[in-house]
Amino acid sequence: MELTEQVRRRPDGLLMFAITPPRRTTTPADAQRIADRTLERLAGLDLDALVLYDIDDETDRNPDERPFPYLPTLDPAEFRSRYLTRWQRPVVVYRSAGKYSPAELADWVTAQDPHQVSTVLVGASSGDSAVRTTLGEAQRLCREHAPDLPLGGVAIPERHESRGDEHLRMRRKQAAGVGFFVTQVVYDVGAAKSMVSDYHYACRDDGQQAVPVVFTLSVCGSPKTLEFLEWLGVHVPGWMRNDLHHTDDPLATSFDQCTAIAEDLAQFCTRHQIPYGFNVESVSIRRAEIEASVRLAAHLQARSHAGRHAVP
Amino acid sequence: MELTEQVRRRPDGLLMFAITPPRRTTTPADAQRIADRTLERLAGLDLDALVLYDIDDETDRNPDERPFPYLPTLDPAEFRSRYLTRWQRPVVVYRSAGKYSPAELADWVTAQDPHQVSTVLVGASSGDSAVRTTLGEAQRLCREHAPDLPLGGVAIPERHESRGDEHLRMRRKQAAGVGFFVTQVVYDVGAAKSMVSDYHYACRDDGQQAVPVVFTLSVCGSPKTLEFLEWLGVHVPGWMRNDLHHTDDPLATSFDQCTAIAEDLAQFCTRHQIPYGFNVESVSIRRAEIEASVRLAAHLQARSHAGRHAVP
Repeated sequence: MELTEQVRRRPDGLLMFAITPPRRTTTPADAQRIADRTLERLAGLDLDALVLYDIDDETDRNPDERPFPYLPTLDPAEFRSRYLTRWQRPVVVYRSAGKYSPAELADWVTAQDPHQVSTVLVGASSGDSAVRTTLGEAQRLCREHAPDLPLGGVAIPERHESRGDEHLRMRRKQAAGVGFFVTQVVYDVGAAKSMVSDYHYACRDDGQQAVPVVFTLSVCGSPKTLEFLEWLGVHVPGWMRNDLHHTDDPLATSFDQCTAIAEDLAQFCTRHQIPYGFNVESVSIRRAEIEASVRLAAHLQARSHAGRHAVP
Repeated sequence: MELTEQVRRRPDGLLMFAITPPRRTTTPADAQRIADRTLERLAGLDLDALVLYDIDDETDRNPDERPFPYLPTLDPAEFRSRYLTRWQRPVVVYRSAGKYSPAELADWVTAQDPHQVSTVLVGASSGDSAVRTTLGEAQRLCREHAPDLPLGGVAIPERHESRGDEHLRMRRKQAAGVGFFVTQVVYDVGAAKSMVSDYHYACRDDGQQAVPVVFTLSVCGSPKTLEFLEWLGVHVPGWMRNDLHHTDDPLATSFDQCTAIAEDLAQFCTRHQIPYGFNVESVSIRRAEIEASVRLAAHLQARSHAGRHAVP
């Protein structure tokens, strides 16, 4: 079933799980083992899509030392087509537009099966990156070469907090063909609510339907992971940071924080009839954090199913 | 029963209600009518204290036009002793230290019955006010002339958001004798949680007990009141402002927002064993907003009683 169909079927809680492809230096045998283990872990979940990130070395965006080293990863599209062949559901492949030439992007989007793949186009992480294709060009290429390929866009609550115009950027992306948004990892629930609120009212003012906003959640099991989240640009409210630093079990504390955020966002979106969903990722590769991510996704799935059954 | 006794009795939800004395030009007969009507409205509530504000013309702090005009009010201490004689419970009288000479303040604190009155000393609203007594001097005067008078202090979550050191200011006030805090009106629950979280951990690091933090809540029934709250320095998150602007019934929407904030703060403080309470005020003098404030206080009282009974 294609993603746009899933969106229609589940306006009250799309569920995605995001992974980062293994390092480029991984042997084919190891890449296959990693892919198989990932699918085993996710086998118990009723996911609407698997999200594959396209990692960029974002040191141009943040000059502070990266808490985890940057290591080039396998191309997410390649990882999918070579190693995730057993995955029968839709895949959302991220594409950092600036990394590819227009011809490369055009070839790639043309080759995708729109029933299986959708793509989230990501703009350059900073103004002075060496950009090979701008986000606008990439969007035009998609419309021209693969009009049926479902397009997603990125939405960043932190940018809305500092500049106040993320909702307008979302409206422009929507006009350029974007049919759903995936946010940066949400720790500041107020910022996320303000962003979707402004987006919701902007759509209403224009007489248009809002497209689903998929909120990314990520558990944090250690001070190092917390540091990495903040390095990535995630605003962690002071009280959450304190609780994560002072608890004996940061993973359990973080899990509770994530489910509280999800509950708040779900209630908010339901009240405003904004279609929404959740995307769970682990920003660290520690086993405990990955397993807690799978448990978080299971929790969100149970929550969403219970909600659906409660409403006649 | 004195306030410090109430604090001991109710670490899980002190309840106060705040009023502003009538304008200075009010006739004695009208002032008595206003006082009587206020006490009638509050008769159904089990309040731990009545809070009397000492209003300052804060135009030196905010150069923007004041949404409601500033009108000098009766002195809160005078209003209490002349017109609120029927009120048998404690009163918390605000004193803007800068408005009075040290001798005036010393005389006043000496004359108060510490079983009936406590005072919240407020510092000047901006650095360049014509200050007759600084906050530090006023605190010293209290310790010297009225060591038994319960002292309160002001805590401002917005200042914590922008400067990050409100918890240190709270710790200094506590060292100067402050036994409870009353916050500025809370709309940004995350900011309030981060402030008390930092305060809580600072107390713990110093091996000291946190004193109660009384959160001020205020319903907003119109765009004008919202504008006034923001003029006063209250940070209203974008999504709350949107909802208040787009609803047919702002008072009902605001009431729900306030009870959600209260629930969040109560759960947070309970989880961290931070003694807390609520203070309800109406920043507008519109009847509908005042009546909704009384309903909000009744709701908080019912919530707190239910909570007490639920825990064996």
